[in-house]
Amino acid sequence: MSSDGETSTTVSKGRLEAFSDGVFAIAITLLVLTIAQPSNYSKLTRQLLERWPSLAAYVVSFLVLGIMWLNHHTIFAHVQRVDHGFFYRNLLLLMTVAFIPYPTEVFGEALRTGAGERTAAVFYSIVMTINGLAWSALWLHASTGRRLLNDELPEEQRRSSTVLFVAGSGVYLVSIGIAFINPYVCLAFHGALALYYAFDPISRRLEHNRSA
Amino acid sequence: MSSDGETSTTVSKGRLEAFSDGVFAIAITLLVLTIAQPSNYSKLTRQLLERWPSLAAYVVSFLVLGIMWLNHHTIFAHVQRVDHGFFYRNLLLLMTVAFIPYPTEVFGEALRTGAGERTAAVFYSIVMTINGLAWSALWLHASTGRRLLNDELPEEQRRSSTVLFVAGSGVYLVSIGIAFINPYVCLAFHGALALYYAFDPISRRLEHNRSA
Amino acid sequence: MSSDGETSTTVSKGRLEAFSDGVFAIAITLLVLTIAQPSNYSKLTRQLLERWPSLAAYVVSFLVLGIMWLNHHTIFAHVQRVDHGFFYRNLLLLMTVAFIPYPTEVFGEALRTGAGERTAAVFYSIVMTINGLAWSALWLHASTGRRLLNDELPEEQRRSSTVLFVAGSGVYLVSIGIAFINPYVCLAFHGALALYYAFDPISRRLEHNRSA
Amino acid sequence: MSSDGETSTTVSKGRLEAFSDGVFAIAITLLVLTIAQPSNYSKLTRQLLERWPSLAAYVVSFLVLGIMWLNHHTIFAHVQRVDHGFFYRNLLLLMTVAFIPYPTEVFGEALRTGAGERTAAVFYSIVMTINGLAWSALWLHASTGRRLLNDELPEEQRRSSTVLFVAGSGVYLVSIGIAFINPYVCLAFHGALALYYAFDPISRRLEHNRSA
Repeated sequence: MSSDGETSTTVSKGRLEAFSDGVFAIAITLLVLTIAQPSNYSKLTRQLLERWPSLAAYVVSFLVLGIMWLNHHTIFAHVQRVDHGFFYRNLLLLMTVAFIPYPTEVFGEALRTGAGERTAAVFYSIVMTINGLAWSALWLHASTGRRLLNDELPEEQRRSSTVLFVAGSGVYLVSIGIAFINPYVCLAFHGALALYYAFDPISRRLEHNRSA
Repeated sequence: MSSDGETSTTVSKGRLEAFSDGVFAIAITLLVLTIAQPSNYSKLTRQLLERWPSLAAYVVSFLVLGIMWLNHHTIFAHVQRVDHGFFYRNLLLLMTVAFIPYPTEVFGEALRTGAGERTAAVFYSIVMTINGLAWSALWLHASTGRRLLNDELPEEQRRSSTVLFVAGSGVYLVSIGIAFINPYVCLAFHGALALYYAFDPISRRLEHNRSA
Repeated sequence: MSSDGETSTTVSKGRLEAFSDGVFAIAITLLVLTIAQPSNYSKLTRQLLERWPSLAAYVVSFLVLGIMWLNHHTIFAHVQRVDHGFFYRNLLLLMTVAFIPYPTEVFGEALRTGAGERTAAVFYSIVMTINGLAWSALWLHASTGRRLLNDELPEEQRRSSTVLFVAGSGVYLVSIGIAFINPYVCLAFHGALALYYAFDPISRRLEHNRSA
Repeated sequence: MSSDGETSTTVSKGRLEAFSDGVFAIAITLLVLTIAQPSNYSKLTRQLLERWPSLAAYVVSFLVLGIMWLNHHTIFAHVQRVDHGFFYRNLLLLMTVAFIPYPTEVFGEALRTGAGERTAAVFYSIVMTINGLAWSALWLHASTGRRLLNDELPEEQRRSSTVLFVAGSGVYLVSIGIAFINPYVCLAFHGALALYYAFDPISRRLEHNRSA
């Protein structure tokens, strides 16, 4: 195997990384299409102000996707090579990532029109939960028995990262519950989660260790 | 010719690969636009549930495109350089790849609205068949007489890969027949085909050989 | 100046190339959105067949953009470095490239609905003519006095390439005339032009020379 | 730290650059979707001519985004490494960049339909002002105390660049005032600003110095 992890029989890590980056960049930029254009320009000021929930959903999903990209980057930095199992789990992850603009639009529109808000919040939270499960599946495949990891990640942190990844899916389950109570709180909760992950499980711990 | 396969008179393999990756990544991410937004938010739960065929078509086409990307990657890994004939066949292939969101939307919408399902299934299958022919054309151009291949692919496997590529187009022809019988079975058949190709012709054989 | 043409005061050739590739890849993949979705699924077969002009416009514009990408690649292969003048001419070129999906949709829709076909053909041809002028501007800036060229392009071919680039804009002017006569012939003419450029001015000549 | 600025605990500069480039390239190419398709093809000539404000807004936003990309490139060329604070400020910047197609469409449509023009111009200018603030935040984080800068940027120019970046936000504030007076002048003002930035604060000064 060559140093960049590419052979003719396995997937090239570099090219898979670039492909994944492309999907993240496109999905995050397509989010702008989720904000409905004004339908009546003679009441433009009012119509733009009424679209604040769509704007809020845009901001939250943009943060979520941006931080997911960073997380993806961190996982790849700890992975020495990729195999077919990793490729398919990554493909499933990308499938949920590329899907996010859809529930984002539904959520924003539901809050704006004042109908179906609860359903929209539950739908958004379910998509995020499935996304969280895909992250866990990717990480567990790569890290179990250090199958694909390189030497940079200490064993102790591998375990704590696993706990945090699995716990993440659990927190998303909580967001489904919140969605039933109050859709606005649910949106804020997802924004807060994104900010929490801003200090992402793996790299936060590593940086702490290094500076210790 | 320089080591990265780029000269001033031929197409750069690396840049063509990156361009192709871009088209694959964009096409796969645009698939989310094929799922129609709800038209009535006061019946949101029901409207989202009714969209399951669009979601199923999204999942199938996402898998298909993801695995095509992997196949593309594998072909490029076995190719030493690219020429103009390869470029144009690759362009035709990308033309069918970038087109896939269109029949995907038609298929999902037809199943959802319960009208034109058979036509939509036949249309989807015809597009896939043409796509399969484009794959065969690309592979045959690269592999006939080992025109563009590097040394890593054993001669015996070149032949078996050719058989599998051509057979692939035949299987897609079968999907047209299935489309006439039952559109839902046809969609499932395409999903199953994607999973079959997950163990793609070339690399599957190579991995088998290497581990032998 | 470093060997990859990047300094802190000039634009990096590599990054400009990647950015341009991105715009080409996105524009070519967005073309699929120019084909109108069926409006009545109970007459799906007929509606799909009626969309053949949109499909034809898709194919022509896809070929045009694909071959433009190749041309862009060839120009960059002959350029040693990029300066601000080159950057802005390239930006103008990309502005016309990214615009192509719009006249493509207008052309296809006009032919399908049988209204405004002549206007649509003229519009499409005008956009292509402006695009041709942008190519000339880019090439003339790079090649005049060999301002940005590397040593690989013989002087004699620099001159003939310039003639061909400028002549290209003239041919697009002819397409405007054809548009007034017959819109269908005009679309076919653009397709034929794309195939002609398939054997693009620069690399065709170079390959001829090398094999001589 | 390795020579390409990538470690397992910090964000890779190269990958962040590629991700940002992707967002810029997609946002700039999505601009074409902001021009409304003709609604009546039997009056196509008139409908296309009436869309000149949308085309003007397309051109202005395309120039703005293209020159922003160049500015982004210049900042990254002066940055030695990226940290989490830089990543998040860059993410906020990309959030405003990816948003630009929305106010562009609103602006063009308002001018075309002759309703809500003032609101649309103010909205566009506010978005640009927020974008300007994001640029200042990114630059100040990187340059204060030379936190992330490499050695190529002289101290004197760091200060003048900072002045120009902050002044830029102020100029955008002026555009909000102009929007209240005349929306058309406001659009032209943004176009002129883009051309001004074409000779961007940092590299213009550097080139001046070098040639001195």
